[in-house]
Amino acid sequence: MRGKHRDFVRIEGAALLVLAAAMIIPFILALFYMEKSSVIGFGTVIGFCILAGVLIRITIKPSPEKFKSRDGFFVVSLTWLVCSLVGAAPFMISGSIPDLADAVFESCSGFSTTGASILTDIESMPKSILFWRSFTHWLGGMGIIVFVMAILPALGISGQMVAYAETPGPIKDKVTARFSDTAKGLYRMYIGLTAAEVILLKLGGMNWYDAFVHTFGTVGTGGFSTYNSSIAHFTSPYIQIVIIVFMVLAGMNFNLYYVGIIQKHGLKTIFRDDETKFYLSAMGIATLAIFIYNNVMDGFRDAGHTLLSAAFQVASITTTTGYATDDFDLWPTFSKMVIFAMFFFGGCSGSTGGGIKCVRMLVCMKLLRRSFSLKVHPNRVVPLSLNGKDLPSDVIIKITNFAFTYVAVLFAGTLLLSVDNMDFISTLSAAASCLGNIGPGFNLVGPTMNYASLTDFSKYVCSFLMIAGRLELFTVFTLFSRHYWNSNRV
Amino acid sequence: MRGKHRDFVRIEGAALLVLAAAMIIPFILALFYMEKSSVIGFGTVIGFCILAGVLIRITIKPSPEKFKSRDGFFVVSLTWLVCSLVGAAPFMISGSIPDLADAVFESCSGFSTTGASILTDIESMPKSILFWRSFTHWLGGMGIIVFVMAILPALGISGQMVAYAETPGPIKDKVTARFSDTAKGLYRMYIGLTAAEVILLKLGGMNWYDAFVHTFGTVGTGGFSTYNSSIAHFTSPYIQIVIIVFMVLAGMNFNLYYVGIIQKHGLKTIFRDDETKFYLSAMGIATLAIFIYNNVMDGFRDAGHTLLSAAFQVASITTTTGYATDDFDLWPTFSKMVIFAMFFFGGCSGSTGGGIKCVRMLVCMKLLRRSFSLKVHPNRVVPLSLNGKDLPSDVIIKITNFAFTYVAVLFAGTLLLSVDNMDFISTLSAAASCLGNIGPGFNLVGPTMNYASLTDFSKYVCSFLMIAGRLELFTVFTLFSRHYWNSNRV
Repeated sequence: MRGKHRDFVRIEGAALLVLAAAMIIPFILALFYMEKSSVIGFGTVIGFCILAGVLIRITIKPSPEKFKSRDGFFVVSLTWLVCSLVGAAPFMISGSIPDLADAVFESCSGFSTTGASILTDIESMPKSILFWRSFTHWLGGMGIIVFVMAILPALGISGQMVAYAETPGPIKDKVTARFSDTAKGLYRMYIGLTAAEVILLKLGGMNWYDAFVHTFGTVGTGGFSTYNSSIAHFTSPYIQIVIIVFMVLAGMNFNLYYVGIIQKHGLKTIFRDDETKFYLSAMGIATLAIFIYNNVMDGFRDAGHTLLSAAFQVASITTTTGYATDDFDLWPTFSKMVIFAMFFFGGCSGSTGGGIKCVRMLVCMKLLRRSFSLKVHPNRVVPLSLNGKDLPSDVIIKITNFAFTYVAVLFAGTLLLSVDNMDFISTLSAAASCLGNIGPGFNLVGPTMNYASLTDFSKYVCSFLMIAGRLELFTVFTLFSRHYWNSNRV
Repeated sequence: MRGKHRDFVRIEGAALLVLAAAMIIPFILALFYMEKSSVIGFGTVIGFCILAGVLIRITIKPSPEKFKSRDGFFVVSLTWLVCSLVGAAPFMISGSIPDLADAVFESCSGFSTTGASILTDIESMPKSILFWRSFTHWLGGMGIIVFVMAILPALGISGQMVAYAETPGPIKDKVTARFSDTAKGLYRMYIGLTAAEVILLKLGGMNWYDAFVHTFGTVGTGGFSTYNSSIAHFTSPYIQIVIIVFMVLAGMNFNLYYVGIIQKHGLKTIFRDDETKFYLSAMGIATLAIFIYNNVMDGFRDAGHTLLSAAFQVASITTTTGYATDDFDLWPTFSKMVIFAMFFFGGCSGSTGGGIKCVRMLVCMKLLRRSFSLKVHPNRVVPLSLNGKDLPSDVIIKITNFAFTYVAVLFAGTLLLSVDNMDFISTLSAAASCLGNIGPGFNLVGPTMNYASLTDFSKYVCSFLMIAGRLELFTVFTLFSRHYWNSNRV
């Protein structure tokens, strides 16, 4: 095996060992709840992972070759694929989700923190399986933060973190020696956020199991629940508010938490950030618009409930979580359009949220504003600034490239899904929802529906869109590029 | 009155005189068909236009001040508005379309060459009124060609003609003395195309009236018909093919006709052009995709008819004409998605077609392709070329700005229309269709439906979108910009 390929395999070996470790918790749960088929499912997969992982790590020697950025793309995509496939195995072996396309869909949806499901009756599933399903959100969420903020910078790629290329913080530490420090700091933030939500949900009357499972779905901005009616199952406004707050927190930049809390620069670091301001304002405006409109349409019948519902649904969609307390598909068209617009904002860069990311939307809007003044004063140079610093033109080009790619992939995905012959908006929103790692769409894939009715082909298309969206498109798509393979051959 | 303002008013005075001259034809038709209310309608408006026009031209003296580009934007937007409002008057005065919002909508749709209609029973309308309705397409089509290829260049703005800034042809002639020569050449091409189609349609068995009216709708890429069933009324494949050919010709760059035919550089000039190739290929691929898919879905029942239907609908939507021989709303979702994609291509630059324009789509796709190689080779410089020449970066920035603005305006329009509470896809497609100057959308505004059910508010929103789309967004939007008025005040 060629030098670098050995390293690729060794990394996947390590991934298998991590997966085995992660599956020990649902395995214990399966024993505890005496779910026999799940015990067999998790036991088999854990055994396989340990065996394969240890074999790989022992027999294959590391190579002295250095990773290039394209190797990073490749190995990260491969890892997400390996995790999604191996993560699907317990679903199939336990017989809970016997169909391959279904199991792969559910696992991709989990690891990509999408939360789209093919399960029609969630409540009939074994508890250990539902725990694993939600735990994949948590693992995927942690994975993406470490990928964006520790792995990519270590490879010399700023990725989505355009706004922070020169701010103090983990992404500046490009030296590999600092890599594990950065990652450790991020783990601490992520675990702290998780612990805080679990405790607050428990205080609100949830049992420990529900508190953990719904926390995984929240901090990973995933959206898998253990109830058919999602968060609407919990009528307590306290619980809904706690989940809103943690969805919003999980959609914010973990780099800012790191700088503000671990490096002790203070909370003002977080709220002085342009992207954070944009993210919170966008959600505030959308909530207000829906709150007012829905109230006017139903004659102010229950303003308090309408406000909570608007805030929950907006936070859920914008952060790309996908939990629901209300069926926005029944809202008036105006409110639906506002929700659909939020499909494209996404979380902040360096968060567990998916989508286009707020910082890119912000830059696109600044570009838009600049284009008017350019038209009137063709010779005036108006630089774009973010957090008080001018954006270099190559960053702007990267962002417009991303926007074009996003639209192109969305269109291609929609076209592939259209072969299922669902109606127009179901097709379009399914593609947008999977690509943006949100979960629900409209109509046939609306908040009270699921993806069970799709054909196997469409389920694989959706699985691909979820992974591609999670890895910021280019990571996956460069693998399909002729240039990529040509230059690898050199 | 300040110097330049005098010129603005004088230009509108001239526009009124042109309108009066244009209305003489439907006025004569009204006399000939003895449509009394139309005689009164056209007579009144002609009288008013001549009176006001002559008064303005006599009493207001021209100013020696030179026009700046922003003055050009202003006066062109104003002219389109004046024409649309005055053009609506005969509809109202004759009582054919008594409601103000309806009459304005129909007139804006005419002059913007959109072809969206609020008429529920076209065939019950007076012939002179229907003639005028279609004639506004023809006037609007000629207007836009002269605007883009003679007025804008005379003001020193290359506008949409990005690809031709250095090719020989009318747009290079920035000297005002050459302006009328250029315009004359364009008139000749436009009138020649019109005459050819009228004769070919007459040879196919149409009467002269229908031949003229449908030619106006074709060469202006408008889409108003005199029949409720649009072109499906003519079952003759010959007539449908003639209309396909002329829709495609009207959607091509008139600059290339000018260079190829009037300046005698040969037809190869036209077909060697990158935009023309892209435009024809896009339509070819879309037609083929729909042809194959629809055939597979209906079991190859009538392949010949399916091909003609696919070609007609694709040509009609891509060129932004909007004629129909088939209800694409009944097609399978895949084919509908292909049609919806064509909503965003539009005609070529310098054509009567609306939409984003093929040259911009082509550049966006080249940007997309380049972004992949940039990701793999961050330091390799890959210039974008069009017609064998590298595109300067400011042109690329203008195109991405246009794309962002288009999406933003589309979203804003959709949000405003959503207040009508039509379903999702009707709302979205109505906004996309009006902004792209197409005509039909999906569902409630589909090819067999119309815009009559919209509220007055939404009709005005649509009217605005049609004019804004026709004038390439910036022309209209810079008027709303703070910068515009601030710098005008200096």
